Amino acid sequence: MKIGIADTTFARVNMGAVAIDELKRHATLRIERYTVPGMKDLPVACKKLIEERGCDLVMALGMPGGKDKDKLCAHEASQGLQLAMLMTNKHIIEVFVHEDEAKDDRELAWLLEQRTREHAVNAVKLLLYPRELERDAGTGQRQGFPDAGPARQ
Amino acid sequence: MKIGIADTTFARVNMGAVAIDELKRHATLRIERYTVPGMKDLPVACKKLIEERGCDLVMALGMPGGKDKDKLCAHEASQGLQLAMLMTNKHIIEVFVHEDEAKDDRELAWLLEQRTREHAVNAVKLLLYPRELERDAGTGQRQGFPDAGPARQ
Amino acid sequence: MKIGIADTTFARVNMGAVAIDELKRHATLRIERYTVPGMKDLPVACKKLIEERGCDLVMALGMPGGKDKDKLCAHEASQGLQLAMLMTNKHIIEVFVHEDEAKDDRELAWLLEQRTREHAVNAVKLLLYPRELERDAGTGQRQGFPDAGPARQ
Amino acid sequence: MKIGIADTTFARVNMGAVAIDELKRHATLRIERYTVPGMKDLPVACKKLIEERGCDLVMALGMPGGKDKDKLCAHEASQGLQLAMLMTNKHIIEVFVHEDEAKDDRELAWLLEQRTREHAVNAVKLLLYPRELERDAGTGQRQGFPDAGPARQ
Amino acid sequence: MKIGIADTTFARVNMGAVAIDELKRHATLRIERYTVPGMKDLPVACKKLIEERGCDLVMALGMPGGKDKDKLCAHEASQGLQLAMLMTNKHIIEVFVHEDEAKDDRELAWLLEQRTREHAVNAVKLLLYPRELERDAGTGQRQGFPDAGPARQ
Repeated sequence: MKIGIADTTFARVNMGAVAIDELKRHATLRIERYTVPGMKDLPVACKKLIEERGCDLVMALGMPGGKDKDKLCAHEASQGLQLAMLMTNKHIIEVFVHEDEAKDDRELAWLLEQRTREHAVNAVKLLLYPRELERDAGTGQRQGFPDAGPARQ
Repeated sequence: MKIGIADTTFARVNMGAVAIDELKRHATLRIERYTVPGMKDLPVACKKLIEERGCDLVMALGMPGGKDKDKLCAHEASQGLQLAMLMTNKHIIEVFVHEDEAKDDRELAWLLEQRTREHAVNAVKLLLYPRELERDAGTGQRQGFPDAGPARQ
Repeated sequence: MKIGIADTTFARVNMGAVAIDELKRHATLRIERYTVPGMKDLPVACKKLIEERGCDLVMALGMPGGKDKDKLCAHEASQGLQLAMLMTNKHIIEVFVHEDEAKDDRELAWLLEQRTREHAVNAVKLLLYPRELERDAGTGQRQGFPDAGPARQ
Repeated sequence: MKIGIADTTFARVNMGAVAIDELKRHATLRIERYTVPGMKDLPVACKKLIEERGCDLVMALGMPGGKDKDKLCAHEASQGLQLAMLMTNKHIIEVFVHEDEAKDDRELAWLLEQRTREHAVNAVKLLLYPRELERDAGTGQRQGFPDAGPARQ
Repeated sequence: MKIGIADTTFARVNMGAVAIDELKRHATLRIERYTVPGMKDLPVACKKLIEERGCDLVMALGMPGGKDKDKLCAHEASQGLQLAMLMTNKHIIEVFVHEDEAKDDRELAWLLEQRTREHAVNAVKLLLYPRELERDAGTGQRQGFPDAGPARQ
């Protein structure tokens, strides 16, 4: 199995390095990394990781800025990721942390790292342990901030 | 006939289990289940259920959160589902319950279950009894909350 | 020539029956009907009417509700219809009446029927009498409410 | 060379006739015309002009109304035109005049005609004189209202 | 290696000439230029540069105006660029400067030139020196205005 890691020079934490560190704790996988300037360059990078470098799943790591214009860029990148998945029949796990989700740089760095790590675990489950996801169906899992939990206690 | 059930660990009720329970009350169908982390992972999961596991119809079960960012995620997932349907010529019934449609966790749990059950019935009709849908054309059917009914009484 | 009629159980008037009634007044055409639960099920139904049941043109009949969430559903369905047309090179006439275009149920029922009838005439012209549309180019035609007329009197 | 002209019965000026008149002043081209009811019917009409009637470039002429609902229709039509271009590798020049760009019917008629004429000239340049466009790169050209001009005088 | 440069007559600085000047400082590359009227003509121009003129990467240079209508045009163009990339598996670097990002014409001219130059360097790195991008992953790089820098100092 091979996992692709696509990240950006725009983000303010080395999300790619974090993802690779976490993946190595959970499984022995081949890893391909592809760093691009910004979020909008991620979809084609992910598709190339799948089609030209043989990845079975890709993590798309990005950090949209807090302005309206940045939100729209993130939306366009997300639509591109959807299309890339449907053209390849492979999962691309979108790990986007909006700069304004955090109250300061310290929390931002924490959130970027934490969400990336938790999604790296999801990537491993999707590829290798799908039954573990099924077991957690409907339990209000979140990545980064605390889980919401099930609606019925 | 085989029906695919795609659901998420993000949702706060086990929508997949509810759908399967309801389907079994109405028809003898083979069922494939595929649980993913979040809504944006649903479209490619549905396409894989159709193309790689031979499903004739898929139910895509999700619970968007109440924030603007969550609404946009749901929109992107919906666009992906549209594309997946058009690429496969198969129905994917989108069952999304927005967290802010319910006034509290209790109503949320009820609505998640009720809408899932009513759409499971629609899935059976689309596959096996299309004339029943034609008979109800234009009668203001709703899933979850009460029907609106026809405009002319 | 064969026309497809796709409509919903969500709408509050039997738009499919209205369309078929009007089409029969203007031309001898074979008609295929396909009723689905909601608007988002229309694009793939239209594509199936074209590709699996041989329709030369389809009318997509829907009634979006008045809430923001419903407007977004209509937008997603419209995007799906655009894509379905471009994938098939066939016209799909979108006949959507937003519930909040009418001031009460009575006007809603009238508008749903009237707009459906006027678009059924457009469907016939697109298929059989394209020169009649060219003759009316730029004359401010509307379906349902009164025509706007040309900007220069 | 053949140019396609797609226009609507919804618009309030015969934009198709204006475009054809202007094109004939600048080049000897074969012209195919296709009038449809509304903006959302334009993308597939343009694609058919290219693929079924052999056009090398198409002008898509439309006049969105001033309401929010109309703006959304224009957006959906624009997305469809983008897709049609990318599926065919041919230019489709979108000439949309929003009804609320003009202060009254008189200005609207003027703007509809003027923008159509200026874009007809662009169509000719794209097909026959691409170097003329390159010469004007970055000079703040506008169609209809006055040019903005370069940022540095 | 061949780089395509797509720009517009709508922009208020000759972005194409700036990009070509910068590219020549960093690498010996063949360059193809394609000037179109406006932003919405860029996606198909980029796709033609890739598929018909053999470009390995394209820069799409545009300057959206400051009105809501212009923002929507930029969004539609961006979606088209995403699709063009995914259809060709080639990078298209979107260099858009919104007219209202600058406080006056002088700053606008500076920003248009500066962002174009910095993205030209990115283009060279994507094609020839991908390890340089990987080295800068997560360092908060920006194009035009100052870099944001990493979240952890």
